[in-house]
Amino acid sequence: MRTRKSIMSLIVAKFGGTSVASPERIQMVAKRLVASKQAGNEVVAVVSAMGKTTDELLGLARAINPDPPAREMDRLLSTGEQVSMTLLAMAIEARGFKAMSFTGRQAGIETDGMHAKAKIHEVHAERIREALDAGFIPVVAGFQGIDPHGDITTLGRGGSDTTAVAISWGIGADVCEIYSDVDGVYTADPRIAPRARKLDAICYDDMLELSSAGAGVLQMRAVEFARKYQVIIHSRSAFSDATGTYIKEATPEMEEAVITGIAHDTSEVKVTIRGVPDTTGVAAKVFSALAGNMVNTDMIIQNISEAGITDISFTCPSADLKRAQETVERVLPEIGAREYDIDEDIAKVSIVGTGMKSSPGVAAKAFSALGESQINILAISTSPIRLSVVVDGAQTAAAVRCLHTAFGLDSDCIFEETQLSAEEIAAKMQKGR
Amino acid sequence: MRTRKSIMSLIVAKFGGTSVASPERIQMVAKRLVASKQAGNEVVAVVSAMGKTTDELLGLARAINPDPPAREMDRLLSTGEQVSMTLLAMAIEARGFKAMSFTGRQAGIETDGMHAKAKIHEVHAERIREALDAGFIPVVAGFQGIDPHGDITTLGRGGSDTTAVAISWGIGADVCEIYSDVDGVYTADPRIAPRARKLDAICYDDMLELSSAGAGVLQMRAVEFARKYQVIIHSRSAFSDATGTYIKEATPEMEEAVITGIAHDTSEVKVTIRGVPDTTGVAAKVFSALAGNMVNTDMIIQNISEAGITDISFTCPSADLKRAQETVERVLPEIGAREYDIDEDIAKVSIVGTGMKSSPGVAAKAFSALGESQINILAISTSPIRLSVVVDGAQTAAAVRCLHTAFGLDSDCIFEETQLSAEEIAAKMQKGR
Repeated sequence: MRTRKSIMSLIVAKFGGTSVASPERIQMVAKRLVASKQAGNEVVAVVSAMGKTTDELLGLARAINPDPPAREMDRLLSTGEQVSMTLLAMAIEARGFKAMSFTGRQAGIETDGMHAKAKIHEVHAERIREALDAGFIPVVAGFQGIDPHGDITTLGRGGSDTTAVAISWGIGADVCEIYSDVDGVYTADPRIAPRARKLDAICYDDMLELSSAGAGVLQMRAVEFARKYQVIIHSRSAFSDATGTYIKEATPEMEEAVITGIAHDTSEVKVTIRGVPDTTGVAAKVFSALAGNMVNTDMIIQNISEAGITDISFTCPSADLKRAQETVERVLPEIGAREYDIDEDIAKVSIVGTGMKSSPGVAAKAFSALGESQINILAISTSPIRLSVVVDGAQTAAAVRCLHTAFGLDSDCIFEETQLSAEEIAAKMQKGR
Repeated sequence: MRTRKSIMSLIVAKFGGTSVASPERIQMVAKRLVASKQAGNEVVAVVSAMGKTTDELLGLARAINPDPPAREMDRLLSTGEQVSMTLLAMAIEARGFKAMSFTGRQAGIETDGMHAKAKIHEVHAERIREALDAGFIPVVAGFQGIDPHGDITTLGRGGSDTTAVAISWGIGADVCEIYSDVDGVYTADPRIAPRARKLDAICYDDMLELSSAGAGVLQMRAVEFARKYQVIIHSRSAFSDATGTYIKEATPEMEEAVITGIAHDTSEVKVTIRGVPDTTGVAAKVFSALAGNMVNTDMIIQNISEAGITDISFTCPSADLKRAQETVERVLPEIGAREYDIDEDIAKVSIVGTGMKSSPGVAAKAFSALGESQINILAISTSPIRLSVVVDGAQTAAAVRCLHTAFGLDSDCIFEETQLSAEEIAAKMQKGR
């Protein structure tokens, strides 16, 4: 992290689309920024496009060209943030404070030329630094940068989080505050685990594993960027002043807990190919074909072969199911397999914790807890700091709750918003699929 | 004009907000551009924002800040053209042709720093030239440029016409086509003068006088720019392939006609201050006060004094009336005048023609024609190539028609869309004020 010395804090504050969805909400954001400035901080705002603007622009483009050129698409989408940033700057000025908006280009966000999913190479934040020194609240358009040809690029969905972290690094901010409609990172989703606790802090690695396992608080690339450049993120609520969760380098205190949190993900499906001859190269053939058809397989399970015949299962995002089916139907005769079936009603439940690395027996404890709760494990996968199991979709809440209790994560107080029984939630989740 | 030699034409084609108001209309514009390209031309498009986008953005800004900072306002408004330019580029690509959009910055439109009404200093059109050479149809955002600080500026309402002329100059285009919902410049407004003729060509000076006298086909600054750099404009319909009107340097042929056209303007009001002591400095006091209060006075009439008492009348835009009233009420006691009154129902009718310079008797002929038609002249003003009279609003159409006939402008065929009598039109115009 580029460092600076001063008594007051240098803060980057990022606000998402719902926080700037109307003139009234933009006024609320301005009020918050002005309060932070009045409290003696230096503040830089980063904004997403207003509400559903990005979707509306996408709709316009598709009405004109079903396969719009990427360069034009990025430029089109980038206008959304340029509207919200100017309106926020105007709202700050209306409160008697100086504000100045910056496009990605003016904020010095330099990216590669990969339109729609550009990666940030460098941040030249001199103009923002100058604006701060002149007493302005700089307002930066999230989600966008500029490529070596001078063309506008966008960073992909949720890219405004990444912009905020990049700007934080560029100006050496003390903290990157990411405001959203949740008030921090929880040990599990409080909507299904009523005893979930808000974490005061979580290390980058655990946050990344939780995100990749289905916890949707922060964009993964933003956390990766923050880890790389040691930017401290503060995930907090746009609708209260309560402290949220700090995402930062692991401290000895954090590592004491074996498990940091439990994530669940009901967005995957399981495909099982039955009666596969257990010969060399069969699995390779199946998964090369899937990859070639852009199916992102997640977990893969091969049963023990009986009489030279086996079953192969894999999970993939629901969005990829159609392509997965096409592929399997094509390779089925090639590999001499009998049939395949699809289970759309599954959930992946993951326990995550850097402490796992030095704590043997986590898997055994997890399996015992699930077994005692009569929850059948359909598949297992692991990383050094994560253990994931696939369970029946109806048992998602029960699985999250029993693991949450088993690893000592339960809070003393029950999360107020959750008054449903595990069965009611399970029923809801079934429907909501 | 920067020149280039080749057989095919290099064309800049500008489309206004109504021409790009919906995906369907954008498709029509793309079709037209592609047809021109297929006919062997090199084409550059310039676009305004879609339909009422600019007004909507203005509304958003005012909801947040009644006095928004000019820099932010310009940046906000400039997004409108950035949306339409990308959508048009996508529409061209959908037809299998290469297109590339350019912001004002990328098109090399360099302006001064006067936000909301910036003036173009220089055009660096190299990127557009390169895109043309590579076979692209460049699509340029109208209405915007970049100031010496790298901030976005806008050129004022109708500024896209100016962008088109500036780009034409920058790349040495053979012609700057300005598409709109009218099919050219007429000898009078065909809606009130059924025998009006479309002009094949008109010189810059006459076009400027007609525009300033109320003919709203083209933005005046665009015509001034075209005159300065000898850019040929072709004003034509976005909804037909018919040839429109060329605006270019005067030719001997054009100068043969004494009068080129007749314009009318019902957007002004007349204020008369009565019982003014006819002493030195009174007029100066009145008109300094009006100028100081940002009232744009147009025509000024002072009656012959009787017994040291006179009346002073002036006309000004309706939009300035409130400020004019305030001013007059304030100076009335200072100058010792008796009272004032306002006539909102007036029209200025102007005859325009470069040929007037060498043709004496134009005024006499105009006054006779009006007198024969029982039309009372309330005020007169002249320039070397224009004669304007103020008449009662109810007589607008009658005045335009009788002058049109008197100066030999009548066409043999009656304009089809106009089937109303002069009285009916007069009644309509009264209501429409």
